[in-house]
Amino acid sequence: VDTFEKLSELFNRFPGIGPRQSRRFVYFLLGQSPQYAAELSRLIAELPRSVASCRSCFRYFPASAHSDLCGICGSSRRDTSLLMVVERDADLESMEKSRAYQGRYFVLGASIPILEKNPEETVRLRQLKQRIEQEGTTLSEVILAMSLTTEGEHTMEHIAACLRPMAEEFDFKISTLGRGLSTGTELEYSDATTIANAFKTRT
Amino acid sequence: VDTFEKLSELFNRFPGIGPRQSRRFVYFLLGQSPQYAAELSRLIAELPRSVASCRSCFRYFPASAHSDLCGICGSSRRDTSLLMVVERDADLESMEKSRAYQGRYFVLGASIPILEKNPEETVRLRQLKQRIEQEGTTLSEVILAMSLTTEGEHTMEHIAACLRPMAEEFDFKISTLGRGLSTGTELEYSDATTIANAFKTRT
Amino acid sequence: VDTFEKLSELFNRFPGIGPRQSRRFVYFLLGQSPQYAAELSRLIAELPRSVASCRSCFRYFPASAHSDLCGICGSSRRDTSLLMVVERDADLESMEKSRAYQGRYFVLGASIPILEKNPEETVRLRQLKQRIEQEGTTLSEVILAMSLTTEGEHTMEHIAACLRPMAEEFDFKISTLGRGLSTGTELEYSDATTIANAFKTRT
Amino acid sequence: VDTFEKLSELFNRFPGIGPRQSRRFVYFLLGQSPQYAAELSRLIAELPRSVASCRSCFRYFPASAHSDLCGICGSSRRDTSLLMVVERDADLESMEKSRAYQGRYFVLGASIPILEKNPEETVRLRQLKQRIEQEGTTLSEVILAMSLTTEGEHTMEHIAACLRPMAEEFDFKISTLGRGLSTGTELEYSDATTIANAFKTRT
Repeated sequence: VDTFEKLSELFNRFPGIGPRQSRRFVYFLLGQSPQYAAELSRLIAELPRSVASCRSCFRYFPASAHSDLCGICGSSRRDTSLLMVVERDADLESMEKSRAYQGRYFVLGASIPILEKNPEETVRLRQLKQRIEQEGTTLSEVILAMSLTTEGEHTMEHIAACLRPMAEEFDFKISTLGRGLSTGTELEYSDATTIANAFKTRT
Repeated sequence: VDTFEKLSELFNRFPGIGPRQSRRFVYFLLGQSPQYAAELSRLIAELPRSVASCRSCFRYFPASAHSDLCGICGSSRRDTSLLMVVERDADLESMEKSRAYQGRYFVLGASIPILEKNPEETVRLRQLKQRIEQEGTTLSEVILAMSLTTEGEHTMEHIAACLRPMAEEFDFKISTLGRGLSTGTELEYSDATTIANAFKTRT
Repeated sequence: VDTFEKLSELFNRFPGIGPRQSRRFVYFLLGQSPQYAAELSRLIAELPRSVASCRSCFRYFPASAHSDLCGICGSSRRDTSLLMVVERDADLESMEKSRAYQGRYFVLGASIPILEKNPEETVRLRQLKQRIEQEGTTLSEVILAMSLTTEGEHTMEHIAACLRPMAEEFDFKISTLGRGLSTGTELEYSDATTIANAFKTRT
Repeated sequence: VDTFEKLSELFNRFPGIGPRQSRRFVYFLLGQSPQYAAELSRLIAELPRSVASCRSCFRYFPASAHSDLCGICGSSRRDTSLLMVVERDADLESMEKSRAYQGRYFVLGASIPILEKNPEETVRLRQLKQRIEQEGTTLSEVILAMSLTTEGEHTMEHIAACLRPMAEEFDFKISTLGRGLSTGTELEYSDATTIANAFKTRT
């Protein structure tokens, strides 16, 4: 059997990569120096043991012998009364870049598809509940920070519904990110909810 | 000379219409009933005298013998302490649809291009200052409601700079619409300012 | 009732124009000089009587008291043994610009939608048959020059099927335009039929 | 140093992959089973020695101990009087899928950028000349099968100019693929050259 075809099939499973681009990837590799392919191969082999999933928030971080907590969860300077729930590591990175938030995180790992029958198997809902069960008394607010896409809003509603009984039990608030004008948004094409909120949160 | 060519040239000046689509418009008209063309011709001829520009906010409204004020400016139920400055009529329409705002408006008529040397000739800046001169003592806030495009932000900054001395003199606040997540926005692709504000305005 | 709304509704029926752009057209007209609107109105009113449909090929041409034939059909220099059938006037214009063809035309007026039950009411099929009935003995070839879109190919097949009996009776050929690489086409993304034909017609 | 960052930097060099998608690739790998990463790593390491470049046409093919010629160059059933020059392996694959061509190939390896000063270092021009030098007497035609993009046409012209003296010396024809309507092409938007050729090659 054929290395070219098998490799292009594996690339084909990469997110957003179709059969044509996956073949182009293999041709690209063939055109690179053997060192490049060797280095790429080595790093991919190393990846699973060099990156760990944080025991507390489940984000990925450079594996270390000293701790199974990521830098944020292990830090004593983060506000432990705030917990922000995000869909993916990339969302957490965006939020950190904004430097607006000083609390801690929980990474669901994915969003919940609209017709998903077993959301517990798609996202880390069980682990989220378990964490809140443990830390509930210190929490004052859980922020659901999902994208404003159909799937993001669906995820937000599902998580909110699941957390509501715990919010009452432990007396914390459930909040969501504010709507408003994003960079590039034209007023004329904005929906009424966005505009109403942009007006309310004017500064 | 040729009616087809002259007509297609006039359509070519319509916003967003290139030479190809303007010809297509003429072919479309040729394919419609003579009644359609007659009605279109009549309405276009009527337009200038059937629509007036409001004496106070400059938005367009159905001309009437009774008043040179539009329905909003003539209404006694709008909050006269708030003045929202928008680029175009369509922005005003979007804001009205949101039902979030109960104050009054001023329509600049356009946005100010980045390299414009004479902004006073592009937008109704003189008329805006004149209106604030007259109503300044009743104003508590002027809201600059521009799109978050490069040109919109440029317009916002220019208008803000022009109004600042009057804001001190008459003691009103200058505000801008709040930033946040718009419908469809993905957290991962949002800029830091938007995310920071979405966090601050969480509900 | 409201001139603005009625006018924007009429623009809304223009090809490719949605409700938003149609309102923008009205705002655009309001921003132009009254002369512009008057001229536009006048030309639209004039259009039906200043443009005629050619008695023979049905294309539009500047109406004249002298002839009900367009410049091409009335010319003695065009090859009367060739008849090219096109969907729309714009296709005919493209073909003329190429200067490759010296025969005559027939304009169907539209393409036939895939699920159309009465193609005779969508395109000038009856008139096409009638013309071939009259000129059949002088014809050596009928060229079906449709776009290579799904609807264009459907139209091509339907017309071909309708003309086949007449082609036998009058002994003319039915041909279609050659496939090959168009400007901008990448070999990698071309379908097998296009590539095979591009190879066959290499020069 | 960080495996995640180093790996995402290597993916960033893949064709068409920006910094965001390259990070997404790493997150994707982290979410897959260790077997997937191991297999991917193994195949990438194997690639350079499992795929060879054909001694005659330079296309990639599964390496074998028996031959340094690819299946096409080694076949006795291909017409040795025809040589088709293509930019990339993917173009050769498209041509083979069309089953229209029974001759042999030469893969340039790339296209020549418009302002390239040393085309000989960008594409296998020297090797192409060398091959024609050897096989010139058996050749009746060299087909330049480039994409109809600006860069493709530039490549075509450069190669044609380089081969012209050899074409005279060895008496072979230099041809290019035929232009015409591609699938999806609309007649109205086609350029004059394409339309003229589509008319000439009608069938």
